[in-house]
Amino acid sequence: MAKEQKTFRPKARLPKGLRDVTASMVRAETRMLGLIRDVYERYGFDPLETSTIEYADALGKFLPDEDRPNEGVFSFQDDDEQWLSLRYDLTAPLARYVAEHYDGLPKPFRRYQVGTVWRNEKPGPGRFRQFTQFDADTVAAPTVAADAEMCMMGADVLEALSIPRGQYRIRVNNRKVLDGLLEEIGLGSDATDRTHMTVLRSIDKFDKLGRRGVELLLGAGRKDESGDFTKGAGLAPEQIARVLDYVESGLTAASSDRAAVLEGWRKVVGASAIGREGIDELAAMDALFTSAGYGPDRIEFNSWIVRGLGYYTGPVFEAELLFDTRDEDGNTVRFGSVGSGGRYDGLIERFKGVKVPATGFSVGVSRLLAALQLLQKVDAAAEPDAPVVVLTLDAANMAGYQAMVTELRQAGIRAEMYLGGSGMRAQMKYADKRGAPVAVIEGEDERATGSLTLKDLVLGAEVSATIEDNAEWRQSQAAQISVPRAKLVEGVREILARHRR
Amino acid sequence: MAKEQKTFRPKARLPKGLRDVTASMVRAETRMLGLIRDVYERYGFDPLETSTIEYADALGKFLPDEDRPNEGVFSFQDDDEQWLSLRYDLTAPLARYVAEHYDGLPKPFRRYQVGTVWRNEKPGPGRFRQFTQFDADTVAAPTVAADAEMCMMGADVLEALSIPRGQYRIRVNNRKVLDGLLEEIGLGSDATDRTHMTVLRSIDKFDKLGRRGVELLLGAGRKDESGDFTKGAGLAPEQIARVLDYVESGLTAASSDRAAVLEGWRKVVGASAIGREGIDELAAMDALFTSAGYGPDRIEFNSWIVRGLGYYTGPVFEAELLFDTRDEDGNTVRFGSVGSGGRYDGLIERFKGVKVPATGFSVGVSRLLAALQLLQKVDAAAEPDAPVVVLTLDAANMAGYQAMVTELRQAGIRAEMYLGGSGMRAQMKYADKRGAPVAVIEGEDERATGSLTLKDLVLGAEVSATIEDNAEWRQSQAAQISVPRAKLVEGVREILARHRR
Repeated sequence: MAKEQKTFRPKARLPKGLRDVTASMVRAETRMLGLIRDVYERYGFDPLETSTIEYADALGKFLPDEDRPNEGVFSFQDDDEQWLSLRYDLTAPLARYVAEHYDGLPKPFRRYQVGTVWRNEKPGPGRFRQFTQFDADTVAAPTVAADAEMCMMGADVLEALSIPRGQYRIRVNNRKVLDGLLEEIGLGSDATDRTHMTVLRSIDKFDKLGRRGVELLLGAGRKDESGDFTKGAGLAPEQIARVLDYVESGLTAASSDRAAVLEGWRKVVGASAIGREGIDELAAMDALFTSAGYGPDRIEFNSWIVRGLGYYTGPVFEAELLFDTRDEDGNTVRFGSVGSGGRYDGLIERFKGVKVPATGFSVGVSRLLAALQLLQKVDAAAEPDAPVVVLTLDAANMAGYQAMVTELRQAGIRAEMYLGGSGMRAQMKYADKRGAPVAVIEGEDERATGSLTLKDLVLGAEVSATIEDNAEWRQSQAAQISVPRAKLVEGVREILARHRR
Repeated sequence: MAKEQKTFRPKARLPKGLRDVTASMVRAETRMLGLIRDVYERYGFDPLETSTIEYADALGKFLPDEDRPNEGVFSFQDDDEQWLSLRYDLTAPLARYVAEHYDGLPKPFRRYQVGTVWRNEKPGPGRFRQFTQFDADTVAAPTVAADAEMCMMGADVLEALSIPRGQYRIRVNNRKVLDGLLEEIGLGSDATDRTHMTVLRSIDKFDKLGRRGVELLLGAGRKDESGDFTKGAGLAPEQIARVLDYVESGLTAASSDRAAVLEGWRKVVGASAIGREGIDELAAMDALFTSAGYGPDRIEFNSWIVRGLGYYTGPVFEAELLFDTRDEDGNTVRFGSVGSGGRYDGLIERFKGVKVPATGFSVGVSRLLAALQLLQKVDAAAEPDAPVVVLTLDAANMAGYQAMVTELRQAGIRAEMYLGGSGMRAQMKYADKRGAPVAVIEGEDERATGSLTLKDLVLGAEVSATIEDNAEWRQSQAAQISVPRAKLVEGVREILARHRR
């Protein structure tokens, strides 16, 4: 630092894909996280905060390629040459934590965590390289009752945030059903098989591309509007027909009857053992949803929920918002997913060598907050009153102003004294910019009479918007009152009470 | 990811200097941060969340040395070859933010931020490479009234956390006084001068080493108990005497009279203009403290507060806890600093080329939390009730258990159903491990009669600790009640009410 030259002047800017979050969004997010936390707590989950930095290998990657250590994640070498990475989600670190402390944990182990995660990926509109997730996971829970709980909790989270029932849906599927389908059409059961992956990715696009688009992707391939060609899975026509049957068996039941959807899927998976197991699991979940009162208006079975990550092994789910918004080109689109999760029985096995069943749900905090803004559910209660501003008109009397602001604060009133170097006009402009409800003024006149002038800036703004005549404005004294110095707190309280929300 | 071999088994462990924070500490920290936030808000500060990643040069470093890009901070190259760093404090990013958005901000600009910071340094006991700071800063405030406010707010923060008055002190000094002293003894005014730095570092050690230790460090040097020799500043005897005069002029006034301390310092800085300016600033702050009712039992002037970082330019302060604790060798030591800050008029100038006066206060969250634990002020209110556990004794009746747990949750009672794969005994052990206050039991007998058994596990633990005779224990039915299925919520509420804190 000492060697820094005096003349060097860095540009004040952020790297791409990163951002600063300003006051009202921070407050809204803090409030939202508190409401989600309450739901997670009510479900019996306890908090855990794992480290932001992990060994790269513990996150499920090999030592990164020497030439591309930052592929997908932010990585750097420790002084002992080992590769460290910033976590890219909260699940991989949980798997590490559970494997490390397995014997001492209650089993099942329920934890929630809210935290920053990082992706070293190409940023885009609304896609950042740093964002926040809020996860709940249950580890060492073999029963799909644990998955069902995640789905119901997802619904409860959205309703706790005042998203009306009907404007969201928890969409549930089961990887085993998908595996059963692929087995039935002769694709085998290796989930890492390339064709297998391509078929799943195609099904996943049904919501966006519709029947025809998926049909092309399952076959030779598809050219999109921009002319880009996506190579297809190369399935035979009768295979394609079976897959489309599956997707539409969810649709024709209109998702409003979970049992009917399962009935359709049961035909599709035919004799596949894994497929039948998947259906049975969903039937068990359906019974739990029903007995707890979560109808298909909240939780539905849905053919095209696939979930991208390779590690899901059973039920998978997405929390989707059904209202429309506009994309960056002005087109109307569904708002889409604000949370997701599923069962990942293999993740902890990486460390321990034995299967440890686990399931979880993850809220995408920024997307959900954006949704709340769109719905105008970002609660005004999250915003405190703007501070009362005590003007500092006489530099020789700072101690007097300090006493005033201290009195206000000790009375629980948010307050500050003006700390800049400017005069009356600039100080009033500052109070305006701060949105201050009251300005406290003690100038020469007031001091001489032992009084204070309290300006009601809210009323003042209203009055100045209606009064056209300048003289009339000067005469209007409603927007300010004079109180004895000793009545500072009472006077300010009186004005604040006028505008109490 | 697909290329990962099946046989690779990473060890589940964290890199050195990093840690996981478990439930009760997360809850205590969340509550503590909320109380600090309330104080900052009351003082008129608004939240801001800057990015965790910044350009390395924006953080006040040159592009890191190719060979040691991680010196002190965690750094990595972006795909355009520019160096990025994880922030090492919250002040440097604030300076970047203010410089970037200067024209649009209200001035003065008051913001608070709580966030993770990272230091790529050798970890030690209680010293981690990732920790949390909670800062408040006022930018574009030239008056030392802004510094005085930081000091009073620091005191308010500690008292909001129930640290008793008298067990903490906000210790204040002024870099200008120190500069004046060094100018007076002929060391010139270059704060980056090596001797200058060494003298300041020696003064900073007065609290630990006492008069004799500092005397040695100001002279030829000092050998510590382990035999390590620290080279001294090499001052002449009369220079050393003047410095010690300064340090002890704070001591003899016993800090209990701020004006007396300043009187002593005024003699020490003699004719130095910068020194006199520093004294005058402190005198102005003293007047503000006094008029706001913050006596020397809360805020004192202190000779040996220096603050390490090179960027402080005026008043500096530390929030220190005065009670004793033990170090890792079992020695009694003062708990020490839990927060600090000061004026840094040069930091934003790096970007803008013009001075932007600023001052701030930073709470060391982990240290403060550790202090609250020692004082047993970690509030039980931060801990929710442990969840009621609904046992799942009959796999065919999961839907019935689910309905129960849903009823409890909808009544606002924290509850979970057992989701593991074990029998009655293990389920009761699980409920114990969870600290559950109530276990809800519906076995065959209960189902037959349409009733539930509710076990009061708190009372059960008390009873089993006092009853010695096994038969007597079996007879004791106080620890469990039977209720009709329809009275689940009432019954649980009744037991919870017995143990309400």
